[in-house]
Amino acid sequence: MVRERISRRQRLIEVGADLFCDQSYEEVAIDDIASSAGISKGLLYYYFPTKHDFYIAIVEYAAAQLLAATEADATLEPMERLRTSLEAYYAYVERHAKAYVSLLRGGVGVDEQVAAIIDMVRQTYIQGILQSFAQETQASALSAIAVRGWVGFVEATSIAWLEQRSISRQALCDLAMTAFTLVVPHDQS
Amino acid sequence: MVRERISRRQRLIEVGADLFCDQSYEEVAIDDIASSAGISKGLLYYYFPTKHDFYIAIVEYAAAQLLAATEADATLEPMERLRTSLEAYYAYVERHAKAYVSLLRGGVGVDEQVAAIIDMVRQTYIQGILQSFAQETQASALSAIAVRGWVGFVEATSIAWLEQRSISRQALCDLAMTAFTLVVPHDQS
Repeated sequence: MVRERISRRQRLIEVGADLFCDQSYEEVAIDDIASSAGISKGLLYYYFPTKHDFYIAIVEYAAAQLLAATEADATLEPMERLRTSLEAYYAYVERHAKAYVSLLRGGVGVDEQVAAIIDMVRQTYIQGILQSFAQETQASALSAIAVRGWVGFVEATSIAWLEQRSISRQALCDLAMTAFTLVVPHDQS
Repeated sequence: MVRERISRRQRLIEVGADLFCDQSYEEVAIDDIASSAGISKGLLYYYFPTKHDFYIAIVEYAAAQLLAATEADATLEPMERLRTSLEAYYAYVERHAKAYVSLLRGGVGVDEQVAAIIDMVRQTYIQGILQSFAQETQASALSAIAVRGWVGFVEATSIAWLEQRSISRQALCDLAMTAFTLVVPHDQS
């Protein structure tokens, strides 16, 4: 019984994720979600009392999905691991372009709760990078700020790239890797 | 008559800017604004029908103030001009730390309209930098994205710095100048 409830909730989130991926928060109607999932509006409200509750659950799901998609093989060399994660990151945001830009630019529906989820993802990346490059960064305050800045760089260039598509994904990835070597000093071999 | 209305509106914005600078959007009460400005609540509503209208006017005012504060002498060398602007930027955000972090992190009150104002400021900086370094960047798509990323780097490091104060403003400025070598290679001396 409990398992069934969990899986139906999960299925609703997946249906919702598809809808919010192609449409803005305002455009998505509760009626559409219920009919796409083949359930009544009442049942949808049983799982998610408000549209915003539903949205938060979807953003949490997307955050977990993004982190899983960008987790690189821990046996790789730090630099190679970073590049692998970065390539996966750009591939993910390209597949979810509309939702990514709207979330990161702070559109409708983006409130403190959503900002906290976005920040959790950032912190996960920052801690992972600092751990991966522990020898080079020596846990210095400057490195921690530089890595935070680099994540901001990756987000800002992702948005610009998704909006304009003026350079290739490969060129974007190379640019971010160059930026990383500038702000996080390390062995260039 | 018209002039008096404009100056009273302006005075209300200045009073509001002080209040929103130290308190979050949710904490600021319309009653406080009216009493700080020495006017009735009714008159305040005459100028700004909702708290959000008032907030938008204040964010617009702050954006104009920031742009004015960071406008460097056009006769300076491009790199010197960038550093001068950057130093003024950090000094400004340090003076308005709470409001800056809350605006950029997408807290309460930050909606499409606020996001559009933040984006206008960003675009002004990006265009100014691309113009200033026109010779080096050759109006390339890659440069435009790199500059957008650099602005994201500056914003992200500003937030981290204001939250942790773990490095000096000077070290922060040096870090951002180093990151800028991604856009335009320059002597680090």
